[in-house]
Amino acid sequence: MVTGPAPAVEARTVLAVRYAETDMMGVVHHAVYPVWFEVGRTDLMLALGLPYTQIEARGYYLMLSGLSVEYRRAAKYGDSVTILTRAAQVRSRTITFSYAVYRAEELLATGETRHIATDHAYRPARLPDDVQAALSVGTR
Amino acid sequence: MVTGPAPAVEARTVLAVRYAETDMMGVVHHAVYPVWFEVGRTDLMLALGLPYTQIEARGYYLMLSGLSVEYRRAAKYGDSVTILTRAAQVRSRTITFSYAVYRAEELLATGETRHIATDHAYRPARLPDDVQAALSVGTR
Amino acid sequence: MVTGPAPAVEARTVLAVRYAETDMMGVVHHAVYPVWFEVGRTDLMLALGLPYTQIEARGYYLMLSGLSVEYRRAAKYGDSVTILTRAAQVRSRTITFSYAVYRAEELLATGETRHIATDHAYRPARLPDDVQAALSVGTR
Amino acid sequence: MVTGPAPAVEARTVLAVRYAETDMMGVVHHAVYPVWFEVGRTDLMLALGLPYTQIEARGYYLMLSGLSVEYRRAAKYGDSVTILTRAAQVRSRTITFSYAVYRAEELLATGETRHIATDHAYRPARLPDDVQAALSVGTR
Repeated sequence: MVTGPAPAVEARTVLAVRYAETDMMGVVHHAVYPVWFEVGRTDLMLALGLPYTQIEARGYYLMLSGLSVEYRRAAKYGDSVTILTRAAQVRSRTITFSYAVYRAEELLATGETRHIATDHAYRPARLPDDVQAALSVGTR
Repeated sequence: MVTGPAPAVEARTVLAVRYAETDMMGVVHHAVYPVWFEVGRTDLMLALGLPYTQIEARGYYLMLSGLSVEYRRAAKYGDSVTILTRAAQVRSRTITFSYAVYRAEELLATGETRHIATDHAYRPARLPDDVQAALSVGTR
Repeated sequence: MVTGPAPAVEARTVLAVRYAETDMMGVVHHAVYPVWFEVGRTDLMLALGLPYTQIEARGYYLMLSGLSVEYRRAAKYGDSVTILTRAAQVRSRTITFSYAVYRAEELLATGETRHIATDHAYRPARLPDDVQAALSVGTR
Repeated sequence: MVTGPAPAVEARTVLAVRYAETDMMGVVHHAVYPVWFEVGRTDLMLALGLPYTQIEARGYYLMLSGLSVEYRRAAKYGDSVTILTRAAQVRSRTITFSYAVYRAEELLATGETRHIATDHAYRPARLPDDVQAALSVGTR
């Protein structure tokens, strides 16, 4: 019997675009996408059995060290958007998540966030093994 | 010589409207005004010699218990707005601030926020006398 | 058979608190509640068969003229909140909506928004009869 | 007399961190930086004699096609931050701006935004020569 790698864990978040998320250009403001990514991250960590609230309760933060977004099509008020979120890379001190935002089948944006683990004094810290393991399930 | 009450202390905050603060209606989104009020509050407390950071450093929060805004005219991107902020009422456990937002001479909005003092566990607390005194200067 | 008034139409919106909605006080920032109210309004209008996008497509805006919020308990990241939204009063040129925000059975906040109908040049306008009628269903 | 290239035009924007810009981590939320960049862009275009309002009044949008941010140090409530903004590259249909955020001498973050020019139906468009010329002054 041949077995391959376990399928990747991916969170699927569906959001209704809020009026407050639009700007005078008539579309969703670009700074909203990192907020949506964060909602996706919340959902991914819940799906992995490791709510982000637990990370903080255990004395860690996953602080942003990098963000990139590629915008292809604008989202509008009235749209329902789907955010797909994955843990792209998990190391003992850094994690990378990747995101894709869709409106039905149409890809609106992709992005990536890079995080460093810190303690609550914002000093770099090593993530506990079980946290690394739980998050790593998302990368397979 | 007849002397009246000391003039009220009022903070005067000038802000340039941000593009991100607009919505698809083409004007500043209404939820931005409480954020502007908060900037006014920050400036008032600085002017009173009592930065809000000190309030928190001493173990208190001034949590919002009430908010009201009356909108008269819409602000737009490109506008410079002025927020006038006063402490309308100061008691040992509650404080009320009032606000007026202008574009040049034109009144755009007025508002009020009511706050309760709490400790960092969000339990109601009595403000120290010196804090009450400093804030009260704003109400005269 | 005795019949009373039709039951009021009320929208029920469930939202997961976003990390970005918190502030350094550790709870949801107060300016987020008007944004949640707006999501509730969107859902109410959908439920009434009159999506807000249609209002705008027909040449109207429902601009905010007044906002009030009473805060009772703070919402936190990780909470699921429910917003109940009703049209409290509908007139030809003004509409009032009322809101209640719950975390399970616990009432977190209540609020009200008052709106004036305008055309797309922001001039006061009279709402078409069918719009008034559709919204009025929410007030019964 | 030897003359070199004209000095680059760079906008210098000073902002006081807003309480609403913080999150429960106690620092400025990462999605705020693109909003600050946008304020810097507004100031740069004013400095170049080409307010962004004019761009839109002439029928164009500069829509975001890409965003990247590198976060080095966290900003906090009470901080005054300075955003330095430059036009890094100007072409007939695309523009790149670059940003650096400082707290006094300390570099907090750097970033870049890429924009495509569109008409008001969001279709790609070629920027008028005078607009290109004005923005190009920022790149020298």
